[in-house]
Amino acid sequence: MNPSYPQENFHHTTFATSSFWAKRRSIVRKNTLHAQLEILKSTGRYDAFRLKWHPTYEEGYKALFWDSDVGKWLEGACYFLAEKGDEEGDKVIDEAVKELTSMIAGAQWEDGYLNIHFTVVKTGLRFTNLRDLHELYNAGHLIEAALIHHQHYKNNLLLDPMLKYVLLMHTTFGPGPGKIHGYPGHPEIELALLRLYSRTGNTHAYELAKYFITERGNLLGVKGQHFYLAEAKQRGEDPGQRPAGDAWPTANAFWYQQAHKPILEQETIKGHSVRAMYLLNAVADLVHLSRTREEDSGEFEKYKTKMYLTGGIGAIDQWEGFGIDFFLPQSTGEGGCYAETCASIGVMMLAERMLQLDLDGKYADILELALYNTALGGMSQNGKEFLYENHLASCSKRPMKRESWFDCACCPPNVTRTFGMLGGYLWSSIVKGKDLEIDVHLYNSAVLSFEVPGGTLSLKQDTNWPWGNTVTFTLDAPSSLDITIKLRIPSWAQPFENGELFTLSPSPIPSLKSSKSYLILTPSYTSLYRNTLVTLAFSPLTFQPRLLRHHPSTNQNTLSIARGPLIYCAEDIDNEWVEDHFKSVAISEDTKLEEYVAQDTILGEDFMKITASGVKVEDAGTEKGSFPGFDIVREKSVKKTDVQIVFVPYFYRGNRGGRGHMRVGFRRL
Amino acid sequence: MNPSYPQENFHHTTFATSSFWAKRRSIVRKNTLHAQLEILKSTGRYDAFRLKWHPTYEEGYKALFWDSDVGKWLEGACYFLAEKGDEEGDKVIDEAVKELTSMIAGAQWEDGYLNIHFTVVKTGLRFTNLRDLHELYNAGHLIEAALIHHQHYKNNLLLDPMLKYVLLMHTTFGPGPGKIHGYPGHPEIELALLRLYSRTGNTHAYELAKYFITERGNLLGVKGQHFYLAEAKQRGEDPGQRPAGDAWPTANAFWYQQAHKPILEQETIKGHSVRAMYLLNAVADLVHLSRTREEDSGEFEKYKTKMYLTGGIGAIDQWEGFGIDFFLPQSTGEGGCYAETCASIGVMMLAERMLQLDLDGKYADILELALYNTALGGMSQNGKEFLYENHLASCSKRPMKRESWFDCACCPPNVTRTFGMLGGYLWSSIVKGKDLEIDVHLYNSAVLSFEVPGGTLSLKQDTNWPWGNTVTFTLDAPSSLDITIKLRIPSWAQPFENGELFTLSPSPIPSLKSSKSYLILTPSYTSLYRNTLVTLAFSPLTFQPRLLRHHPSTNQNTLSIARGPLIYCAEDIDNEWVEDHFKSVAISEDTKLEEYVAQDTILGEDFMKITASGVKVEDAGTEKGSFPGFDIVREKSVKKTDVQIVFVPYFYRGNRGGRGHMRVGFRRL
Repeated sequence: MNPSYPQENFHHTTFATSSFWAKRRSIVRKNTLHAQLEILKSTGRYDAFRLKWHPTYEEGYKALFWDSDVGKWLEGACYFLAEKGDEEGDKVIDEAVKELTSMIAGAQWEDGYLNIHFTVVKTGLRFTNLRDLHELYNAGHLIEAALIHHQHYKNNLLLDPMLKYVLLMHTTFGPGPGKIHGYPGHPEIELALLRLYSRTGNTHAYELAKYFITERGNLLGVKGQHFYLAEAKQRGEDPGQRPAGDAWPTANAFWYQQAHKPILEQETIKGHSVRAMYLLNAVADLVHLSRTREEDSGEFEKYKTKMYLTGGIGAIDQWEGFGIDFFLPQSTGEGGCYAETCASIGVMMLAERMLQLDLDGKYADILELALYNTALGGMSQNGKEFLYENHLASCSKRPMKRESWFDCACCPPNVTRTFGMLGGYLWSSIVKGKDLEIDVHLYNSAVLSFEVPGGTLSLKQDTNWPWGNTVTFTLDAPSSLDITIKLRIPSWAQPFENGELFTLSPSPIPSLKSSKSYLILTPSYTSLYRNTLVTLAFSPLTFQPRLLRHHPSTNQNTLSIARGPLIYCAEDIDNEWVEDHFKSVAISEDTKLEEYVAQDTILGEDFMKITASGVKVEDAGTEKGSFPGFDIVREKSVKKTDVQIVFVPYFYRGNRGGRGHMRVGFRRL
Repeated sequence: MNPSYPQENFHHTTFATSSFWAKRRSIVRKNTLHAQLEILKSTGRYDAFRLKWHPTYEEGYKALFWDSDVGKWLEGACYFLAEKGDEEGDKVIDEAVKELTSMIAGAQWEDGYLNIHFTVVKTGLRFTNLRDLHELYNAGHLIEAALIHHQHYKNNLLLDPMLKYVLLMHTTFGPGPGKIHGYPGHPEIELALLRLYSRTGNTHAYELAKYFITERGNLLGVKGQHFYLAEAKQRGEDPGQRPAGDAWPTANAFWYQQAHKPILEQETIKGHSVRAMYLLNAVADLVHLSRTREEDSGEFEKYKTKMYLTGGIGAIDQWEGFGIDFFLPQSTGEGGCYAETCASIGVMMLAERMLQLDLDGKYADILELALYNTALGGMSQNGKEFLYENHLASCSKRPMKRESWFDCACCPPNVTRTFGMLGGYLWSSIVKGKDLEIDVHLYNSAVLSFEVPGGTLSLKQDTNWPWGNTVTFTLDAPSSLDITIKLRIPSWAQPFENGELFTLSPSPIPSLKSSKSYLILTPSYTSLYRNTLVTLAFSPLTFQPRLLRHHPSTNQNTLSIARGPLIYCAEDIDNEWVEDHFKSVAISEDTKLEEYVAQDTILGEDFMKITASGVKVEDAGTEKGSFPGFDIVREKSVKKTDVQIVFVPYFYRGNRGGRGHMRVGFRRL
């Protein structure tokens, strides 16, 4: 069974102009695409495929990812070009895409090889360091760009070079004699190859991806040795030495790349979080290709002990990845917090895949959580500034501050392409003969529309999500189809007074059925109410501010504020009195949360601010005796000053200047 | 002004036979010295100075510290030999000391050089890697052994070779042309050299130590480069590579050795905790040699934010050292805890030195805390098993378990020598003409006795410390002396009903004076009550169990139990129901603490166990919705089961078998 990809069906969705996501996608189209194009040009990335020397190449490995930076931008650009919209702006983008396509094709070697670094800088050393140098990661992003390029332009100008490269890779890597028995340090090519196969049936791509995934972590892969060890020795490196750069905590720590053992034998998730996500996504695709919907595979359970309540993953700065279970400090100044934007995009990708394998609201909850908080928060309201790390609290060494770009620029264009394909995340559909099922995962005013036997299906949803508590649906489809619609019920929904989590009108008869947090509108219901407004309403309580805590095993004795799918944070710009990144500010579980409407001038939209009463605690701990531990009886005399704390959505942080003080989890009084 | 060293004046103290510390010192003498001698022999360390090949030398750097292992044992042995005691056992120890002395002298090169590794294994590479290979650290411990050897045997058989080695070092290292402008990666030689100078007036030793201390961290020391960089390049190493072994988190992380900048410019304490302590001790000695008593230098304030409430320091396993401020998780399974035994011994050493520079009870509190908890706890009750790390909680990967020895064996013989010189930690004395001051830092039944003008001074203290609340003193001294006695008042003392922290009888007239938590018995008082029983009594409350918390900035929302200077912990052997290292067990600040007398069969002594009522909390966190954060309103329904928890002193842990579950800080309910 073929997976369905947001990248492949995003164009079935049209966002209502004034909806939450339409506004943001419009900003990406009007601002982000252009701003990032300018940066690609000014930093040398744009012209790099012309294969001339660039001064950055002197600076170690800074330019290693340039192919992928361009690839991700190209991919994002094509999603937006595929829609009607900003004609004048699109012309600029369209021309750049065409020029880049031509440059990329021109940079290809006769034998199909294609990579800037190993053509211009390290000629002759291609495929000698798969572990560290992102060669195949770059290829993967170029293939992903080629797939949407082909879909949009309906030509092969980018896809053909990539197919030629795939052929070279297939000749180079694999189990056979004379081939390299290896796989990349940073997964991505696997995702690209499997989607290429899914679209084109290219079996080379499938074989190669399957080999990369299943060979990974083979401890005896090359003459009885781990491939990365054999590869390092081949380069003349001492295997007792850690590679340059400081990411590996110990020598041969192959768990950094999830290659310490075969993926099916890995009991927990470890190492670099983006690599882990991309690998798991590829595994999910491979599984999907070989089976039908199955039971919960438990993938997410493995790392819920390693996920922040913002949907961020990865607490450890050094290897940009996971710590031990429940090790989730809020900031660098409190022991670590990384939560890379790309990793949360990886979480979204994996959640979407899991929903296809096992339709369970728990995956949709995580998808929504990562989307509204860490992924959306990775970009500023004006679409021109970004975050690489998504700390839950700032500290003096890492104040809250957005940047227009990064040397290692994976995150900004990853946000661009994710918003480009966003329509594909809202819902998924399965057609089997005259049976059709639509699963609605995310609520936002939009129309899903695609061709079906006998005409066009259109499902419209209308809502003020994430602020409001109702969603209305209108279905228009040929009467010959038996249509099931499944509507997600968030786990955070609060019940009405009668204990029900939602109402549906018109009400179905005999009664509502649901499965794994999806409400099922059966074919008899949908045929009865075709072209009729159907309303799903949640209790007003569902969209009132609520308090969250971290799991007690995290040792985070904190309270955080959420409202619907949004996590909230406090910033100094609303709380001028703050001096210490809110470290000394506590709230109690009895604090009264009040919300009020505020206006964002950039997007011209209303949103909700929340206030809570708290106290500033003057611990003066070390003065209460010279013991590092303090007598609890003396704690009663600690001085406390009342403060009023204003909270804004976490994604909204860092948009209004300020002194860089920000916090999600407040000490619990 | 010369520092006074516990190593130099320990023999002025005679412990009362049945006192807390006498029992433990007797165990060290009867068990530990012999058990460690057997291990030195069976592992090859004892005979290593015969300079024959040993199979361990094939195993990388395992034998690098062997000189110091022998040196520390030698030092410890001599302290005990200097006292009357176990005649038969002492004969064995005495013979071994003599044989080792002869072997060490025989292993010296013609030019004075003395080191096993660079004689047998890496001949010709001496002094080419001061940064990593512990060459001078080894020399330091041999010098420390030689000083007590000389004092006890009154011969130069060990001291002369070491003086010859010092001469070679003085020719080799220093600011002059042709000399190595370097210093060791692991301080220790500095301490040894300064004490050698203090005893013998050897100016080479002084110059060398001062050079090592002040040159350390010079960023431009060798041809405009940091010495460690220049040294690495000299060895043909790539400075971008981290050294073998995994301790350095990043390349050229010279803060690991506190050599990233000159010590006076270091604003916080970082890196390997034992190195840090030894360096600071050497700095304190250098300061002491150049001045008289001064104001609080604030040394301890720097790292109270990095000290566990047990007196342990160092949260990070990788570099056996400090994390950021307030990063103090309780176990490896909760993010890290190291708290090496040697580091706590370093804390004791530094606290004792600080008391000489600035008599303030806060240093004595820390001295006592580290002594009774992490240092004492580093050895089992029978003196034959040890702990390298002093976690505050066990976890499945690091269950609570003692070992008879370690490959890297720094801690066991460090405990031995510390108990050997323990008498020197109890009190210090300053004689100026006919003015004499005795500062009593630690309470334990013992007699201080030394020659003074006109006869012998003797100060006897009698107490059941750390269990009882009174200490009695009897002073006998020539009446010609004006004697001031200062008695420490612990910061954890709880007041009597009238608000006083203690009573003294007979009462002084007009009134008591005290300064920085030391009660001052003036010459007029001590002359009045010479040969009279003087009693210092604390409130019974002072020795009742009390609750401590970690500083809130540690994010440790825990309660711990203390009683007097002792921190308590719970173990599975007293709490058979425990299954999860007490992670799910919570106590409230209202819990009733009750104590009762228990008997230790090994030492045949009574001690106090404490019980507290708590609850086992079944969080089932992840089932309360798929969000990583949980609604606080749902927390109320969490299941709680009452449990009774039995606590024993932290030092007592791991002495009675069991399943390895142990914890100090319990979740706060």
